Amino acid sequence: MNKRYVIIGGSAAGPKIASKIRRLDQNAEVIIIQKSKNLSMASCGYPYYVGGVFDNPDQLVSAPTGVLRDPSFFSAVKDITAYVETEALSIDREAKTVRIKDLNTGKEQDISYDKLAITTGASPIKPPIEGIDLEGICTLHNMEDALELKERIKDGGGSKKAVVVGGGLIGIETCEAFQLAGIENTVVEMLDQVLPFLDWDMAKLVENHIREKGAEVLTGDGVKKFNGKDGKIVSVELQSGITIKCNMAVVSIGVRPRSKIAGDCGIIVGTKGGIQVNRFMQTNDSDIYSAGDCVEVTNLITHEKQLWPMGDAANLQGRVAAQNMVFGNIEEYEGFIGTGICKVFDFTAGSTGLSEKMAKREGYKNIIKVIHAAPDKPGFMGGKPIILKLLAEKTTGKFLGLQAVGSGDVAKRLSIAAMALHGRMCISQLVNLDLPYAPPFSPAIDNFITAIHVLENKWRRYMDGISAVELKAKLDTGEKPFIIGVRGPAELEVCGWISGRI
Amino acid sequence: MNKRYVIIGGSAAGPKIASKIRRLDQNAEVIIIQKSKNLSMASCGYPYYVGGVFDNPDQLVSAPTGVLRDPSFFSAVKDITAYVETEALSIDREAKTVRIKDLNTGKEQDISYDKLAITTGASPIKPPIEGIDLEGICTLHNMEDALELKERIKDGGGSKKAVVVGGGLIGIETCEAFQLAGIENTVVEMLDQVLPFLDWDMAKLVENHIREKGAEVLTGDGVKKFNGKDGKIVSVELQSGITIKCNMAVVSIGVRPRSKIAGDCGIIVGTKGGIQVNRFMQTNDSDIYSAGDCVEVTNLITHEKQLWPMGDAANLQGRVAAQNMVFGNIEEYEGFIGTGICKVFDFTAGSTGLSEKMAKREGYKNIIKVIHAAPDKPGFMGGKPIILKLLAEKTTGKFLGLQAVGSGDVAKRLSIAAMALHGRMCISQLVNLDLPYAPPFSPAIDNFITAIHVLENKWRRYMDGISAVELKAKLDTGEKPFIIGVRGPAELEVCGWISGRI
Repeated sequence: MNKRYVIIGGSAAGPKIASKIRRLDQNAEVIIIQKSKNLSMASCGYPYYVGGVFDNPDQLVSAPTGVLRDPSFFSAVKDITAYVETEALSIDREAKTVRIKDLNTGKEQDISYDKLAITTGASPIKPPIEGIDLEGICTLHNMEDALELKERIKDGGGSKKAVVVGGGLIGIETCEAFQLAGIENTVVEMLDQVLPFLDWDMAKLVENHIREKGAEVLTGDGVKKFNGKDGKIVSVELQSGITIKCNMAVVSIGVRPRSKIAGDCGIIVGTKGGIQVNRFMQTNDSDIYSAGDCVEVTNLITHEKQLWPMGDAANLQGRVAAQNMVFGNIEEYEGFIGTGICKVFDFTAGSTGLSEKMAKREGYKNIIKVIHAAPDKPGFMGGKPIILKLLAEKTTGKFLGLQAVGSGDVAKRLSIAAMALHGRMCISQLVNLDLPYAPPFSPAIDNFITAIHVLENKWRRYMDGISAVELKAKLDTGEKPFIIGVRGPAELEVCGWISGRI
Repeated sequence: MNKRYVIIGGSAAGPKIASKIRRLDQNAEVIIIQKSKNLSMASCGYPYYVGGVFDNPDQLVSAPTGVLRDPSFFSAVKDITAYVETEALSIDREAKTVRIKDLNTGKEQDISYDKLAITTGASPIKPPIEGIDLEGICTLHNMEDALELKERIKDGGGSKKAVVVGGGLIGIETCEAFQLAGIENTVVEMLDQVLPFLDWDMAKLVENHIREKGAEVLTGDGVKKFNGKDGKIVSVELQSGITIKCNMAVVSIGVRPRSKIAGDCGIIVGTKGGIQVNRFMQTNDSDIYSAGDCVEVTNLITHEKQLWPMGDAANLQGRVAAQNMVFGNIEEYEGFIGTGICKVFDFTAGSTGLSEKMAKREGYKNIIKVIHAAPDKPGFMGGKPIILKLLAEKTTGKFLGLQAVGSGDVAKRLSIAAMALHGRMCISQLVNLDLPYAPPFSPAIDNFITAIHVLENKWRRYMDGISAVELKAKLDTGEKPFIIGVRGPAELEVCGWISGRI
């Protein structure tokens, strides 16, 4: 008899599972239950739609060929039944059914499954702050948010000003989007830095660049209350006492896994709030799998179970889950290494593996670090600066992570480092990499390799170094270090572009 | 007593060795013997100087700070003595001396060494073709060549036309340089394709793009003779009978290691003509090391000794040699994996590891291959097409190589694949890579990962495929395959950009 696969959730992991199952089993019945109206949304594209990089929202829910990924597309092209605007209310694991409710008609019914996937994703956190429900305050988490924000931006009438609450990845992308759309805005972040996946020193470079581009950033400050007039937001009052006038606010302080439907039917939820799965993406019910923002997965560097709500991970996990649902646990998802990247105006900022902060938190005691600033190509090819911060473990020489910031090609160096982490490589395996070199693409010795060379020099005790932060701390305590400048005046002037532009 | 280190050769590996020795041993005496007038040239930049990407040739021999890397720079900044326009004539291994000759005065002398490095590089091959010494024919191998070509291009008076003999990496870069400088030109290549590190099908994409950009490419044809008038080249006669009028020709059919001075004193030269070194870059004389274009090194995929005349490898080998010369074989250069990249107008083309052709030559029988064409970013972010060709070994699932061509970000995917090869990774380690994803940088599942997914699908026998070349061969034999098109007309039109632009 043909098997029936039911998938709860239709954003990233869900449609991936459904499509992959179809390719692996031509006879299966495949059903997606989706609460929202939209399916298979390119959620990571919302800030670029809001910022005006493109203006047709259909592009966020279209296949590369321009065909809309709606229920009739899923039905006609993939023979997948997608119930949209339909909520999954509960799971009966004994009967192997899901109770669903049509949100338009209110009609409820039970549908049975042979194998079930829970891909319910995550919800944006809305803190219980006074005034949070005022008109003009939203998150940037779903299609409706994106459309609303775009509308508010277009909708003329007077100068606009926005506050972005939270300086993480989405917050910073939203700040850029506002700026590109001509909306004055301020980012408010509780921590003492933006982009918490970076160390403070690297994040500072990004913060300076954001200010240079005209947006304001306030770190170490939080929202006390949102003030309104006639039900609409008019200002944000901060804990420091500062009040910022605005007519829009975006709250982007993180997401929380949607694991309630799983927990309610006895599927084990982990300590971080995400659904527990084994490396086959299978829950404690062998007929129920899960993938995407709602699960906890293994950090391959620390071997801890963590939430990792990223679009690429959701897709990869979905592909693994689908194969296992059809063929029975033949494919593993080992975990993630912690790679993140973000466009910030002319800069790119990203990290992979451990930052210094994370390494300390994980108990690493003997860390060697290097901060390396250089153009990403030869000067005569118009190289642009990138700053790399690398970490390795002193005792073993194991490479632990890279952070990268700058206007040059940061994504390539993060990719190289991510591969080094996936390959569990150590310094001596990284000093002589055969990377694609030609002047239009990199210096003869790529920035990543040069930084590894410096790391090795420190590891072998050929040299030691001091970071700008450490030097500043020394100066602040009144210490008078002896500093020798080795550049001539002309060279210093040429070098100015590095310190000046980054 | 302080040690004296002598280095024969001052292009890439030589200055690297000298500088690194200085950093490791403050008291050493370090001497470079350089036949040319120039030191530490960015040789890979010559085509970009000729093409007008930049016009000051000093940039090719300057530090990033703009300071000229001449003998006084090496002396003042690094305390290294560089004898330029000085030829090393012979080595007396017993006496541990090098006989050198000042090319300006003709004066000869012996200088002694404690440790010696031979970094004599390679010479461009000039085939014994009639007319090869006519004025207007040159190679693009050294600074003098670059200056001469630039002069010929600037030097007005009538329409210019050039012939590029050899369609390898330098030949294609030279073709682009001519085209950018407004010089009509034809590339003539003996093989049936350009860029021999690519398979024929991938090279064909590059060839078509070159033609689209206005240059001519003739494959499967060689030069019979160069015709001259008043000692100057006026045309090139090909073996096919075609004659091409021109007033310039660049010969770029490869290089040959300069290993004579080594061979003459009993240092072992390998079967490919390069100096033999162990993994410490040490020759059979324990006091003599060698690095750069003049040595044979290990291909880490095939484990064969090969010539690998690349600027990045020379620098890396130099760094290894220097450490071993100072501290006694503490650092290894394991070898290279065969990574090459080339800008070709709007395209980038490159390869790492084995191509299908190379794999066959190496005796691999069970190869799975994938050709994957897709935009390098989401459509809404302006993705540009890249075509990837991946190979793996069927029995082990071992990843063997990637070729990549297209107008999108090819360098990043080659870097990822190069790291997979360095890490000796197999398919199951590559399906769930955590790469830096955000819409400005890649699709949610990176092109490389998607291609690996297809490779895995074939490996697991979920699917099979047929390449365009194989399909064409079937059609040519009169076979009538049954082809089902699954795109609607509107989709086909959208897809046109892929086939049309690449």
